[in-house]
Amino acid sequence: MSLADFGRKELDIAEHEMPGLMAARKEFGPAQPLAGVRVMGSLHMTIQTAVLAETLEALGADVRWCSCNIFSTQDHAASACVRAGTANIFAWKGETLEEYWWCTDKALTWPDGEGMDQIVDHGGDATLLLHEGKKFEEQFAKDKSLPDPASTDNAEFKCVLATIKNSIAKDPTRFTRMVQRMVGVSEETTTGVHRLIAMADVGELLFPAINVNDCVTKSKFDNVYGCRHSLPDGIMRATDVMLSGKKVVICGFGDVGKGSAASMRAQNAITYVTEIDPICALQACMEGYQVVTMEDLISEADVFITTTGNKDIITLEHMKKMKNNAIVGNIGHFDNEIQMEQLEKATTRMNIKPQCDKYTFPDGHGVIVLAEGRLLNLGCATGHPSFVMSNSFTNQTLAQLELRKAYVEAGKDKAKSKYQNQVYLLPKELDEKVARLHLGQLGAHLTELSTEQADYIGVKKSGPYKPTTYRY
Amino acid sequence: MSLADFGRKELDIAEHEMPGLMAARKEFGPAQPLAGVRVMGSLHMTIQTAVLAETLEALGADVRWCSCNIFSTQDHAASACVRAGTANIFAWKGETLEEYWWCTDKALTWPDGEGMDQIVDHGGDATLLLHEGKKFEEQFAKDKSLPDPASTDNAEFKCVLATIKNSIAKDPTRFTRMVQRMVGVSEETTTGVHRLIAMADVGELLFPAINVNDCVTKSKFDNVYGCRHSLPDGIMRATDVMLSGKKVVICGFGDVGKGSAASMRAQNAITYVTEIDPICALQACMEGYQVVTMEDLISEADVFITTTGNKDIITLEHMKKMKNNAIVGNIGHFDNEIQMEQLEKATTRMNIKPQCDKYTFPDGHGVIVLAEGRLLNLGCATGHPSFVMSNSFTNQTLAQLELRKAYVEAGKDKAKSKYQNQVYLLPKELDEKVARLHLGQLGAHLTELSTEQADYIGVKKSGPYKPTTYRY
Amino acid sequence: MSLADFGRKELDIAEHEMPGLMAARKEFGPAQPLAGVRVMGSLHMTIQTAVLAETLEALGADVRWCSCNIFSTQDHAASACVRAGTANIFAWKGETLEEYWWCTDKALTWPDGEGMDQIVDHGGDATLLLHEGKKFEEQFAKDKSLPDPASTDNAEFKCVLATIKNSIAKDPTRFTRMVQRMVGVSEETTTGVHRLIAMADVGELLFPAINVNDCVTKSKFDNVYGCRHSLPDGIMRATDVMLSGKKVVICGFGDVGKGSAASMRAQNAITYVTEIDPICALQACMEGYQVVTMEDLISEADVFITTTGNKDIITLEHMKKMKNNAIVGNIGHFDNEIQMEQLEKATTRMNIKPQCDKYTFPDGHGVIVLAEGRLLNLGCATGHPSFVMSNSFTNQTLAQLELRKAYVEAGKDKAKSKYQNQVYLLPKELDEKVARLHLGQLGAHLTELSTEQADYIGVKKSGPYKPTTYRY
Amino acid sequence: MSLADFGRKELDIAEHEMPGLMAARKEFGPAQPLAGVRVMGSLHMTIQTAVLAETLEALGADVRWCSCNIFSTQDHAASACVRAGTANIFAWKGETLEEYWWCTDKALTWPDGEGMDQIVDHGGDATLLLHEGKKFEEQFAKDKSLPDPASTDNAEFKCVLATIKNSIAKDPTRFTRMVQRMVGVSEETTTGVHRLIAMADVGELLFPAINVNDCVTKSKFDNVYGCRHSLPDGIMRATDVMLSGKKVVICGFGDVGKGSAASMRAQNAITYVTEIDPICALQACMEGYQVVTMEDLISEADVFITTTGNKDIITLEHMKKMKNNAIVGNIGHFDNEIQMEQLEKATTRMNIKPQCDKYTFPDGHGVIVLAEGRLLNLGCATGHPSFVMSNSFTNQTLAQLELRKAYVEAGKDKAKSKYQNQVYLLPKELDEKVARLHLGQLGAHLTELSTEQADYIGVKKSGPYKPTTYRY
Repeated sequence: MSLADFGRKELDIAEHEMPGLMAARKEFGPAQPLAGVRVMGSLHMTIQTAVLAETLEALGADVRWCSCNIFSTQDHAASACVRAGTANIFAWKGETLEEYWWCTDKALTWPDGEGMDQIVDHGGDATLLLHEGKKFEEQFAKDKSLPDPASTDNAEFKCVLATIKNSIAKDPTRFTRMVQRMVGVSEETTTGVHRLIAMADVGELLFPAINVNDCVTKSKFDNVYGCRHSLPDGIMRATDVMLSGKKVVICGFGDVGKGSAASMRAQNAITYVTEIDPICALQACMEGYQVVTMEDLISEADVFITTTGNKDIITLEHMKKMKNNAIVGNIGHFDNEIQMEQLEKATTRMNIKPQCDKYTFPDGHGVIVLAEGRLLNLGCATGHPSFVMSNSFTNQTLAQLELRKAYVEAGKDKAKSKYQNQVYLLPKELDEKVARLHLGQLGAHLTELSTEQADYIGVKKSGPYKPTTYRY
Repeated sequence: MSLADFGRKELDIAEHEMPGLMAARKEFGPAQPLAGVRVMGSLHMTIQTAVLAETLEALGADVRWCSCNIFSTQDHAASACVRAGTANIFAWKGETLEEYWWCTDKALTWPDGEGMDQIVDHGGDATLLLHEGKKFEEQFAKDKSLPDPASTDNAEFKCVLATIKNSIAKDPTRFTRMVQRMVGVSEETTTGVHRLIAMADVGELLFPAINVNDCVTKSKFDNVYGCRHSLPDGIMRATDVMLSGKKVVICGFGDVGKGSAASMRAQNAITYVTEIDPICALQACMEGYQVVTMEDLISEADVFITTTGNKDIITLEHMKKMKNNAIVGNIGHFDNEIQMEQLEKATTRMNIKPQCDKYTFPDGHGVIVLAEGRLLNLGCATGHPSFVMSNSFTNQTLAQLELRKAYVEAGKDKAKSKYQNQVYLLPKELDEKVARLHLGQLGAHLTELSTEQADYIGVKKSGPYKPTTYRY
Repeated sequence: MSLADFGRKELDIAEHEMPGLMAARKEFGPAQPLAGVRVMGSLHMTIQTAVLAETLEALGADVRWCSCNIFSTQDHAASACVRAGTANIFAWKGETLEEYWWCTDKALTWPDGEGMDQIVDHGGDATLLLHEGKKFEEQFAKDKSLPDPASTDNAEFKCVLATIKNSIAKDPTRFTRMVQRMVGVSEETTTGVHRLIAMADVGELLFPAINVNDCVTKSKFDNVYGCRHSLPDGIMRATDVMLSGKKVVICGFGDVGKGSAASMRAQNAITYVTEIDPICALQACMEGYQVVTMEDLISEADVFITTTGNKDIITLEHMKKMKNNAIVGNIGHFDNEIQMEQLEKATTRMNIKPQCDKYTFPDGHGVIVLAEGRLLNLGCATGHPSFVMSNSFTNQTLAQLELRKAYVEAGKDKAKSKYQNQVYLLPKELDEKVARLHLGQLGAHLTELSTEQADYIGVKKSGPYKPTTYRY
Repeated sequence: MSLADFGRKELDIAEHEMPGLMAARKEFGPAQPLAGVRVMGSLHMTIQTAVLAETLEALGADVRWCSCNIFSTQDHAASACVRAGTANIFAWKGETLEEYWWCTDKALTWPDGEGMDQIVDHGGDATLLLHEGKKFEEQFAKDKSLPDPASTDNAEFKCVLATIKNSIAKDPTRFTRMVQRMVGVSEETTTGVHRLIAMADVGELLFPAINVNDCVTKSKFDNVYGCRHSLPDGIMRATDVMLSGKKVVICGFGDVGKGSAASMRAQNAITYVTEIDPICALQACMEGYQVVTMEDLISEADVFITTTGNKDIITLEHMKKMKNNAIVGNIGHFDNEIQMEQLEKATTRMNIKPQCDKYTFPDGHGVIVLAEGRLLNLGCATGHPSFVMSNSFTNQTLAQLELRKAYVEAGKDKAKSKYQNQVYLLPKELDEKVARLHLGQLGAHLTELSTEQADYIGVKKSGPYKPTTYRY
């Protein structure tokens, strides 16, 4: 069986678990609202992403794609799309940084040398390249100066500068033309949205952006339900350890922490929570978790998981005091939630299985670290399940359609579109629509408001049903 | 043992469960920030409210109080305060509507005939009386016309008009002077906040208002944790029925519904949810509840609970189709969530126990309705527990202090205060402070951010820790 | 409304929750298998027991009843039966010990001066009286000596001796004739079964006994599910305290402890378990409870509950070290699980509400004890719910029928009956039948074995399905 | 890294999770109670089993081992033991039937041509071979007839006969001498125990047997906690599907079903149970599961899992009616719980991933079957986790010690040993000891009975604490 065959079989199964995307194909496919629209994606090239890419293609789009992480591509997924001709994919598992930025550059360059109309972004790398590219082209137009990769110590930004330098050498207005063509970007992540808002705040954002990250059906679903699924999955695949009866410390009780703690209790672990925010801490109390400091449990707990988005949550000093074979993992954000660099220096590392290492201190005791401190649900398991991603990606699809619709309604005059160079939330109706498209597969029956009831609570029968401040 | 003795003993116990209020007494008592301030409260006169009233008094306030519901006063609570002289209380269990408005009027009138500086309101009746009173006084000043109680069919508004009519007869500028004196109101409920916002939107709000209802430590705690505690408590006290193995339909999956459904599953009931909002419906699915329509389960379920804030959720037609002895109750808002009027007409009612009646249809089968369709956790049990109310009421206390502080900081010149005649949220720092004051009693240990960590995520070490849009 | 009216209304509701008994009436009522059979019951005279007594009557029995506890009678239940003429009841709430034994004696004496054919016993008091009575009658026949109440310090046994002394004075062979008439007893409790087995072991048991206590549908259901329902119910009715976030120590993890701990976790309390049996302790670990000693948590926990059947579980020394207002209760067996006598002496007692007292130590801190250390689910709530009792009492009903059937099948020759003067388990088929009779009301659909499947696992299609050693 | 290196690293980690075995090494190692004792094992040759084998070796035993299943050997585990010289292993993953029985024969034959003193058996294959071997040797001694492999259609028994035939040809009294030497066997499984009891009942059991299967710390722990861990693990590794919100039918609510249903609810699936035993069905109701028939849910459910030990639980007709992509798996016993043979014939099979196939019906819809209908927790995940196996295997270790001790105490005269040719339960003290040895690693603190308390409930302070009939 070829890699593409294998990918296609997994795609068939995943489609079943992504009812929002399949419903979008059915509802919008006939009208081909993205016909002729060039859509570029920069987002982990997995099986689920392939279903998204093929959905955009099914709505008419001309799709090119790269990954947003050097490790995250599932080659069989990429392969299946390529063979089917549904998208041009530039991504493979284990790229170098140079290859990564080469792929990004390829994905946003159509055969005619021009760029895309819209971007699906994850973390903002594609958007960054366009913004930096245009900036350096302008500089070049002014003084013929080129970006200097040697000017930065950041290995990644070095590649960005090299990419732009090469581009200007060949075509000194390429990025500028690309930006002019851009109708908008839809961004998947907190980090990416932060970058976009920072640019918009200083008036430097060059095209409209839709913040998909803060849709309820994205942020709550990814973070709470996705992690609730994948945390125990990752721990078990990596260690086969029984969690029942074990003491587990979940660092942080935000959305990721809430899902993580729930999953550990569901495994009948004795679950502790650390928090810095008193409101979240009190929520943890109300759910029956004991709220502790790391110091309280450091020598007793069996498992420690970071979920914070902050750094130095588990320090070298913490790990020194842990029990032998304590398991340490991160499902929050970057690998600096755990002091991995310091740990590497202070210990001897022994690989047990892929993505599972024991770091032994000179005194003979050691800790087991999952996925080298990076996201363990991605490293040790398969990340968020298809059903959760279907929610995120249906938001992405609706965001892409919304950008296009506004552009068309404005007579393809960007200046007249309702979306200007700002960061917009997806309208709540569309957030609700995403949810609606996922109920059928679960056999859920929604109740309809009567006209009298809708009037009584002051909403439209078709929604939106809640004020924007509603917390869900 | 006298009623006041009995009340005082329950107050002693309740204080233990209301650490936020006791901490406020300790922190702010010495400075007496409310010294000489007249505070009027219109809020269910229960044991917990007595702890609030006595907290305000401990901070220096001169306190007068009435209830906001004709049934909700706990006489031993009122009695204990009165005997201790900590507050003047005008409230008793089972008032008539006339008595209710007489009490409200008495509570907002100090012995010198003048009004209060600040109001603690629940549902907005005190605020309404001031607004209507001033309006009619202005009308009277213009044309000597008086409000006409016969002009309305609404029994309650009839009393309001009669009260104002009598007042104008004796002192035609009393309400106007009261309004002038008012520094602000803090409002406890969704309904009251809606009324305030409606007035502010048309420029008719006459003094600043703080929306306590939408504090996280109020709305999430009252609605989710309070109902999670009191729903099974109410059902059991009323019926003694075992919920394990029974089929329970929770109508609505907002905050009240989330708490209610969790409580029924915790009793090992087979729990179903009805919803009109697809996002909430999908959340219910993700928590493992089957989302159904009333029609799906109408002849199978054993218990039906409304949590919606909407009307006609359980109709007469529904109840006709239920199993004999199906239990029907409301923990949402008004008793019109269940079609009680229609039920009364179509059935024979037999009282089984206080707050528990069987309504029998002509065909011989009947349904058991709790608390006559009114809030069953109040009617059949004792409402939210002290610990939950401590959160709400500490918010109230901080709101009262905040109103005062802003007034003093503005040199007691209302025009210069940061709070004008609008509706304000309590600053998030104070919301976090409320949570903080409740952690100690539960033995929770909060972690402190290091300076580096605070900088890394861009917050102050002391908070607030989250953006205002954070959903918790 | 009269007491009997009130009782009858509650009986109507309870019948709905006791489907096993109602099914037994329907299945066996027409054949009147207990026609003419005298059945005496000595078992808490509650609403649920009234449904049992009326079920036995509906099957033809001539029923007389007393309670097995001086406090446990629900007067409205007794009253309803008496008025309906379905049973002669000798019981009221708050009997003295003398009255208690007078009631027992009356209940087992029919108007003709003779006794019953069968007994429904709870704890064995009725059985004890018959055995002691016959023994003393034999002694009297030998040497005219009478029992001497002064010969014992035990207040209860004093009454037993007085009762027998008075009886012999009037009719020196009454108990002997009663024993001769007895076809058998069915016993409800562990304690009663222990007494019966002790007598059988030394050949002194005077009639056959069926051990109802060890039916799965009795022991597991009463202890696990009954306590799981009634522990939080009792705590809440007595204290209104919110359990979420509180630390609760459950002493013992037998069946009662398993149900109790589950109920506390279901309230989102942080739940700890103490155990002496390592197997039960490891089960607690596997369910995610932290297994501690009393000493570990004594100054931190908010609630302590005993479930053991042993004594001195919570000692005076423990209570001295508890936090102020710690809640202490017993759902195990006798009030000596908590050192109440010692506590009474060392503290000042203040009654807060019925069945809820604060005991204050000289240093000013105190503990809140529920139901004076007696079973708090009975004292503070209404004990096991009807549905649970329906299981126990359907076992009782089937046991009574089984005793009768064996007697009739043996040609009413006791010597030929399959039941001799031993203690028998109810056949597993009947245990399964009890379960079967309760499934319908819950809407449960049982699957039927095919003949091939039954053969494959070596059971009959109609059961029993498990070996007697099966642990469920 | 060599296979043996890899195995040794996993062994090191597993030892940490098998505290019972490590404690046994520590407690008994110094006295070398198995010094010179030949122990043969026939039990899945996994990492956990390697820890058992090395524990027996650490107590002095001379160990030889084979697997009890042609697929279950983990080669790196076997390799690590062999290299360390701690046991002679005859097992590899993917044996043919011929190879399997060759391995068994090798494992029970020491270099001197003689057999072992004791067996650790799983399913009874080693015991079977000894019994059949001796029987045929006796026949041969009588009439020189040899077993005829052609006399049976059973592929497996054919191999047994061939093995014996070959043995007799070389050494016609080998099995007879082996039986004479045998001190006893300890058996791990229900099936094996059934075989042993059947032989004992007809007087054909040739040496004492200890039933390890029915220890509480084996049967409850393996079945409930082991499956609770490994069912979701297996489903997720095979399908990556999110279970939250899905409808899952668990067929059977015995111990395996109880653990399985709990694990599905813990994943927030809507969990249904089918049962044939009304007691287990009512237990399911009391835990809040809806009890249904397969027919009720056949076209609605997303996942179907068999847990019964019976056959034809999921039939071809059932699978025809399931939704497309419904997931079907077995965690009960043999693969005939699902009609796999019939399914193979009626469908087209497409392999998706190892141990995950889609079987498509001619109408185009299909079902996804895990592990070809065999135990999915073994096939798709790694079976029971080490901690659970530590309980089983500590029982095995104590059973081996007990057999030896009784033999030594009887002066090595088997006729005088307390264990004769019957099937014995492990004494409850030892069952409790197994639990005790596992508490420390979980940080559980056991409470000790005082002498007074022990007397009060009539047990010894050191246990056993419960009657043999206790259900736990």
